Amino acid sequence: MKMAHMVTNCSFSPSPAVKTYSKSPGYCCNVTQFQSSKCSNLVLKSCTATRPNRPFVSRASAAVQGQTQTPLTGSQQASGHSSSKPKKVMVIGGDGYCGWATALHLSNKGYEVAIVDNLVRRLFDHQLGLDSLTPIASIQNRIRRWKALTGKMIQLYVGDICDFDFLSEAFKSFEPDSAVHFGEQRSAPYSMIDRSRAVFTQHNNVIGTLNVLFAIKEFSEECHLVKLGTMGEYGTPNIDIEEGFITITHNGRTDTLPYPKQASSFYHLSKVHDSHNIAFTCKAWGIRATDLNQGVVYGVRTDETAMHEELSNRFDYDGVFGTALNRFCVQAAVGHPLTVYGKGGQTRGYLDIRDTVQCVELAIANPAKPGEFRVFNQFTEQFSVNELAKLVTAAGAKLGLEVQTKSVPNPRVEAEEHYYNAKHTKLMELGLEPHLLSDSLLDSLLNFAVQYKDRVDTAQIMPSVSWKKMGAKPKTVSV
Amino acid sequence: MKMAHMVTNCSFSPSPAVKTYSKSPGYCCNVTQFQSSKCSNLVLKSCTATRPNRPFVSRASAAVQGQTQTPLTGSQQASGHSSSKPKKVMVIGGDGYCGWATALHLSNKGYEVAIVDNLVRRLFDHQLGLDSLTPIASIQNRIRRWKALTGKMIQLYVGDICDFDFLSEAFKSFEPDSAVHFGEQRSAPYSMIDRSRAVFTQHNNVIGTLNVLFAIKEFSEECHLVKLGTMGEYGTPNIDIEEGFITITHNGRTDTLPYPKQASSFYHLSKVHDSHNIAFTCKAWGIRATDLNQGVVYGVRTDETAMHEELSNRFDYDGVFGTALNRFCVQAAVGHPLTVYGKGGQTRGYLDIRDTVQCVELAIANPAKPGEFRVFNQFTEQFSVNELAKLVTAAGAKLGLEVQTKSVPNPRVEAEEHYYNAKHTKLMELGLEPHLLSDSLLDSLLNFAVQYKDRVDTAQIMPSVSWKKMGAKPKTVSV
Repeated sequence: MKMAHMVTNCSFSPSPAVKTYSKSPGYCCNVTQFQSSKCSNLVLKSCTATRPNRPFVSRASAAVQGQTQTPLTGSQQASGHSSSKPKKVMVIGGDGYCGWATALHLSNKGYEVAIVDNLVRRLFDHQLGLDSLTPIASIQNRIRRWKALTGKMIQLYVGDICDFDFLSEAFKSFEPDSAVHFGEQRSAPYSMIDRSRAVFTQHNNVIGTLNVLFAIKEFSEECHLVKLGTMGEYGTPNIDIEEGFITITHNGRTDTLPYPKQASSFYHLSKVHDSHNIAFTCKAWGIRATDLNQGVVYGVRTDETAMHEELSNRFDYDGVFGTALNRFCVQAAVGHPLTVYGKGGQTRGYLDIRDTVQCVELAIANPAKPGEFRVFNQFTEQFSVNELAKLVTAAGAKLGLEVQTKSVPNPRVEAEEHYYNAKHTKLMELGLEPHLLSDSLLDSLLNFAVQYKDRVDTAQIMPSVSWKKMGAKPKTVSV
Repeated sequence: MKMAHMVTNCSFSPSPAVKTYSKSPGYCCNVTQFQSSKCSNLVLKSCTATRPNRPFVSRASAAVQGQTQTPLTGSQQASGHSSSKPKKVMVIGGDGYCGWATALHLSNKGYEVAIVDNLVRRLFDHQLGLDSLTPIASIQNRIRRWKALTGKMIQLYVGDICDFDFLSEAFKSFEPDSAVHFGEQRSAPYSMIDRSRAVFTQHNNVIGTLNVLFAIKEFSEECHLVKLGTMGEYGTPNIDIEEGFITITHNGRTDTLPYPKQASSFYHLSKVHDSHNIAFTCKAWGIRATDLNQGVVYGVRTDETAMHEELSNRFDYDGVFGTALNRFCVQAAVGHPLTVYGKGGQTRGYLDIRDTVQCVELAIANPAKPGEFRVFNQFTEQFSVNELAKLVTAAGAKLGLEVQTKSVPNPRVEAEEHYYNAKHTKLMELGLEPHLLSDSLLDSLLNFAVQYKDRVDTAQIMPSVSWKKMGAKPKTVSV
């Protein structure tokens, strides 16, 4: 029996515990119960327990109605309204940048949270010679610290969602009311390193999401899937971008159809594929799903991650995983010119990570109806790369930093000057209160980067991956 | 060395040779050279030869211009115009229903043809207990017979295109001018049997196509990809279906964008994913590609497959691989009621297999330009299922067959009454001369089914796969 095998392999040491966990393909436990430093039968029993006759977990009727009711706040939903049991949220990819912040936020709001993660994002750093600007604790220590500070317990399932046996066990044991799915390879440059990374990205993301859909159908059919998509699915069309669907009148007839997709990396394409697959299962199986087409996230601190250094979130500034604004702040802090790719007219939607966690909470609290495939564009403001560079330059000047900007050859294939106007009203209608990119936020982000500037490896900053030059041969990206 | 390994494994027996080949992951040879029944070093040398300094294979300039010139016929293109060397076409999936007919047709038209196939379609039959109505020869005997009858040689590479090492060898050794890609799991019901078949279908199709794109980029960047898509990518929108792209005016601005996709099985979705991936590589890498969104193919005989019984094409009538019209003819021949799924108002585009081979030939002869992603809707007529049933009933009456029609619960999730009007002019503009579904064709198809009716296994006819009931557990579909 699989779990029995895990018992024999289970040797817990307080720190560093990551290696032990990552070797186990389907390890689930309540980490906070391990503080005595040895596995107990009690814990393993609670991991393996199957509950064939457990009553169906129904959600509060107001929540089921979703958009037709007054939007719920997270704490209203978390409390479960008509029952005293908190709502359960599985955060797949809960050890990552957005996932960790979200897991803590939801736990703080009263949801019962389980993190499902194979921790492979940490492996990518090892393999590519990269590191977060901020030191980050192991997932086990993160969860332990959270329990110590708040008394709130986060369950942990370490394994790969492409392994359906593992995912099945996680679903059967946790029985989520919502599954928030961040568990994908999420870097466009990573997917463009070489053939094997392109194939890995599409296989990992598409098959992982298929497995999540099958797990919901098989084990938790009322579970609401909240899936992280990307604004990059839309590309840069010369018309306004709507939220997921567009009404088209053509030759005298009218229909509302999925918004056309024009993704521009194998990563972005994987999310396009996911969206199509999810939409189909909503129609065919009655899955309830929300696709959050997220913009570029910036910032690092959320209320919860700021509580203790062991709760710190990762902060990527490298050419593979770093996103534009975060990367610019680090460049400014260390006196590296801001690297604008090409003409810098590339315009995208951006949001503060504090709004990421808020958006996910709103989506969970106001779930899609059975069979509904709902798409929200999850960002708060649009900026061009040049605009960001100007903002960072001005903020740097206030701190006495002399910030240069340098145009570097664009490693991507993308329009560098284009129309861009994307709608983003649905989350506002649910109650999103945006943290807009203000001077004060930029100041604090820059200060944050300055605080950690001794940890910056400037060799990581420049783009090392070319869209046009990528090849079939395996490539080692070294710093 | 891989090829050396193959030498030791290579034991050729005239018949049945399939088992020997299918065990070998990357086996390439000119089968016609095996008639002495043993592998020779000569053959294996020709398999393994690498030609690092071989001149770049350029195509005739008239052909490169594509649509801006008078369309070329296949034989004009095959002859290579300005050079005496015939054009080379790699037919991936060349042992399947459309692939085999296409390979022979192109060979007959003067192209140098190589078939790349892992023969897994034959394995599906074994595993599901299905069989072609027509007895089909092994791929080795097929190719040998073709050589004996016509003097034309077809090369054979047996292996899996998901194995990039194998595919690389095939590309480097054959150096195709065009790659026609039929090499995918092509049944919607198969993809809906269970989770593992859904995952297999998407992995196999998406990753196989990614590998083909990388092989073209790496080894044959002028090679024109002719990819078999499906009309099912579009679904059944309430507006006219265009050929790949639609011009949308929205809030006062206009753009021409990919036509929205609404596929309704994991198979159809895999083709949607392919289309997005291919479009991206055309833009990013300058790949030249034609996506043939094919309708439902009917018929079995083409000029070439009719030349000898060992050249016979497969004819599927079962509930998994059988397509509507072919299945109806078999049902009529054996006195089984025609099985109309649900209301029968499902309307789709159809074409004769003789037009499939003609369309592919036209696409090859008039290739896409570098960087161009071109989409042709490949069908000639639209029918509803009820219309097909009526046509078969009338044709049966002429042959003295009393044909009943029975509505069975629809195993699929699809609209049973809907608007459907799909454009299909681009292949006509290139010179397609359609074989429309006439009384005489239906008569001959019915007669064909009657001829083989003793081979019919009626247990294969009914749908055995349910879109709604599919589950995560592995399912054995037994007859």
